[in-house]
Amino acid sequence: MTVNFSPGPSQLYFTTEDHTRAAFRQGIPSLSHRSKMFEQFYQHTQEQLRALLSIPTSHHIFFTASATEIWERIVQNLVAEKSTHFVNGAFSEKFFKAGLQLNKDAKSITAEDGDGFSEPIKVDGEIIGITHNETSTGVSLPLDFIYGMKELNPSALVCVDAVSSIPFVDFDYNKIDSVYFSVQKGFGMPPGLGVWIVNEKCIAKSEQLLAKGHSIGTYHSLPSYLANGKKNQTPETPNSVAIYVLGKIAEDMNRRGINAIRKETLYKSTILYQALQSHEKINAFVGKKEYQSSTVVIADCGEHTNSVIHHLNNKGIDPGEGYGKHKNYQLRFANFPAHSKEQFEQLVDSLNSF
Amino acid sequence: MTVNFSPGPSQLYFTTEDHTRAAFRQGIPSLSHRSKMFEQFYQHTQEQLRALLSIPTSHHIFFTASATEIWERIVQNLVAEKSTHFVNGAFSEKFFKAGLQLNKDAKSITAEDGDGFSEPIKVDGEIIGITHNETSTGVSLPLDFIYGMKELNPSALVCVDAVSSIPFVDFDYNKIDSVYFSVQKGFGMPPGLGVWIVNEKCIAKSEQLLAKGHSIGTYHSLPSYLANGKKNQTPETPNSVAIYVLGKIAEDMNRRGINAIRKETLYKSTILYQALQSHEKINAFVGKKEYQSSTVVIADCGEHTNSVIHHLNNKGIDPGEGYGKHKNYQLRFANFPAHSKEQFEQLVDSLNSF
Repeated sequence: MTVNFSPGPSQLYFTTEDHTRAAFRQGIPSLSHRSKMFEQFYQHTQEQLRALLSIPTSHHIFFTASATEIWERIVQNLVAEKSTHFVNGAFSEKFFKAGLQLNKDAKSITAEDGDGFSEPIKVDGEIIGITHNETSTGVSLPLDFIYGMKELNPSALVCVDAVSSIPFVDFDYNKIDSVYFSVQKGFGMPPGLGVWIVNEKCIAKSEQLLAKGHSIGTYHSLPSYLANGKKNQTPETPNSVAIYVLGKIAEDMNRRGINAIRKETLYKSTILYQALQSHEKINAFVGKKEYQSSTVVIADCGEHTNSVIHHLNNKGIDPGEGYGKHKNYQLRFANFPAHSKEQFEQLVDSLNSF
Repeated sequence: MTVNFSPGPSQLYFTTEDHTRAAFRQGIPSLSHRSKMFEQFYQHTQEQLRALLSIPTSHHIFFTASATEIWERIVQNLVAEKSTHFVNGAFSEKFFKAGLQLNKDAKSITAEDGDGFSEPIKVDGEIIGITHNETSTGVSLPLDFIYGMKELNPSALVCVDAVSSIPFVDFDYNKIDSVYFSVQKGFGMPPGLGVWIVNEKCIAKSEQLLAKGHSIGTYHSLPSYLANGKKNQTPETPNSVAIYVLGKIAEDMNRRGINAIRKETLYKSTILYQALQSHEKINAFVGKKEYQSSTVVIADCGEHTNSVIHHLNNKGIDPGEGYGKHKNYQLRFANFPAHSKEQFEQLVDSLNSF
C-alpha cells in the first residue's frame, strides 16, 4: 500500500472507512436532517470537537462545504467595508481576493513565499485574516504573533485559517475570534466538509450588519447557523455522513489523547527536518526555524525533484507536489495524525538513501 | 428492511453503497482534485448526466454543496436588481426569500399549498424562479407553463427547481436557461452535492454583472466554474466521492434505460393515486390532476395520520411526514428510481388494508 503524504486530500485516518460503513449500516445517508438521530450525532460531533480542541463555550461550531466557502462567509458576515489580510502564499492570497471579489476594501500585507510574520502591528480592518499554516509554502506563524495582533487591534475580528494545522495546533481560543479548517487534512477524511468556529463577537457583528441593511448571505449567515445550531440542526440538508464520521474520528482521537497526537507529530516533524538539514541534495524550503511548519514540511529538491519522486514511489511513498509555481523543484510532506511514526521513519530512511 | 418513502434524504439507490466502497478502494477520498484521475471521473459524471437527462452542449453542468446553495448562486450571478418567483410551497418560498436576503427587489406570485400555476404571464424580473416539483406540497407544474413563461418573457432567465423531479422529468433544455437539483432525492445518494445546469445566456449575464462592478460571489461564480470546468476541475476541493458516485449511478440508470425508469415511475404513481382516490379514509392532497406530482405523492390522512404511520411501519414502510404545518395530517410518498415496483405495490396493498 502506498502512503499518501500529499497535504490534502491526504492519507485517510485509520478509522475513516470503517466509520463510513457504519454510517451506511445505520441509515445515516437517508436520514432526515430534522430527525432526532441527526440531532444526536450532530451534538456528538460538536462535543468531541470541543473536547479534542479545547474549544470554549464562548465559541460556536458550524459546518460548511469547504474552507473555501468559509472565506466567503467570513467576508459576507463580518465585513461592511474593510478587511486586512496577511498574505504569504496561495491560500492566504485567495482569502484576500475573496474580499476584493465581494467588493470590500480589502488590503494585504505580504511576505515572500517561505517567509512569515512575527511582529504584531496596528492595522485598519473589521477583520484580520491570518493563515496559521500556509499549506502552499509550509510556513507556520507563531501563535504569539496571532495573539499579539488581537491585542494591538482589539476591535477587529481575528480570523485564523488552520486548515492544515488542526488538530495539532493548540490555540487559546479566548485570543482568537474565528478559526476554520476542512476535514481532508488533519482529520484524514474525504473532502466535502468545512468547520467554522466563531465567537459571540462574530455573531454580534453579523447581526449588526444585518440590522444596518447589509446583505450577509442567505442560509449560511451566522444568525441562520445559530438558529438551527441551537436545535443541533443545520440550515440546509448537509453532508450528514461527513458530520457523523468527523465526530467518530474526533472521538477516536480523544481516546488516543490529543497530547499523544501532538507529541508524535512533533517527533515526526523533528526527524524529517533533521534529515533535510543533513541531506546533501535536499533542503528544507522554509529556512527560518520559527516559521517551519510541523504539519506541512516542504523540501526543496531542485533539479533532483523528479528523481526523488521516483525514488520515493519505489518505496511506497507518495509525496505531495510543490504548489503552483513551486511544482518543479519542491515536494510537500503532510504530517497528520493519519501518518504513523513508522511511516515517517520509513520516509526519513528513504530520503537519506537518496 | 424498512423502505424509506420520505422525499429526501430518501431510500438509497440500489448501487449507492457499492459505488461508495469502490470509491474508497480506488483511493478517491484522498485524491487531489487537480489530478488526472479526478478529471477523468468528473468528465465521466458529466457525460453520464448529459446522456441520462438529454442535456445539450449549450448547457454547462456545475457542482455545488446543495440545492439551497444554488438559490444563492443564481441570485448572486444572475440578478442585478429584480427577480420574480412563483411561490406555491415552502421551497419555492425559500428561493424567493434568498432574493430578498441578497437585497434584491424580489417579487413573488403565490398560489395556495396544493395549487399551482398553468397560465403563462408577463412578469418583471431578470430571472423567473419556477419550482417544477414542490417537495413540500406534491404539486408539479405543467411543462407547457414553464416553456410558456420563457416564450412570454424571452429576456428573463428561467430557472427551474427540479430537486425532486429529476431524473423523471423530461425537460426540453432549449426552452429553459437553468435547472438544478440535489442528489439525495431521485438519485438515491447521501446529501452533500447539488447539480446546477446553466446555459450560455446565464454565463453571459454573470460576466456582464461582473463587468459592471457587481459582486457575483467568489469561488462559485459562473466564470470561476467555467474556467475550472473546462479543465474538468472544480474551483474548490469538492465532495469528490459524491461526484464519482453520481456518475456511476447515472451510468447504471443509463444502462437500465431512462425510458424504462420513467415508465415505471408513471406506473407506480398511477397505482398510488388510484388507491388514494378509492380510499375511504385517505385522499390525495393535490386535487387537480394536472398538478399531481408523479415523484412526490401527498396523502391527506387527517385524523388518521398517526394510525396510518403505525400501520405502515408494521409493514416495513416508512412514509415521509407532511411538511411543516401539514405535519399532523399529511404523509408524503417519494416515487424515485430507488423505489421498486414491488415496494410500491406493497405500499398500495398496505394502504388499501387500512
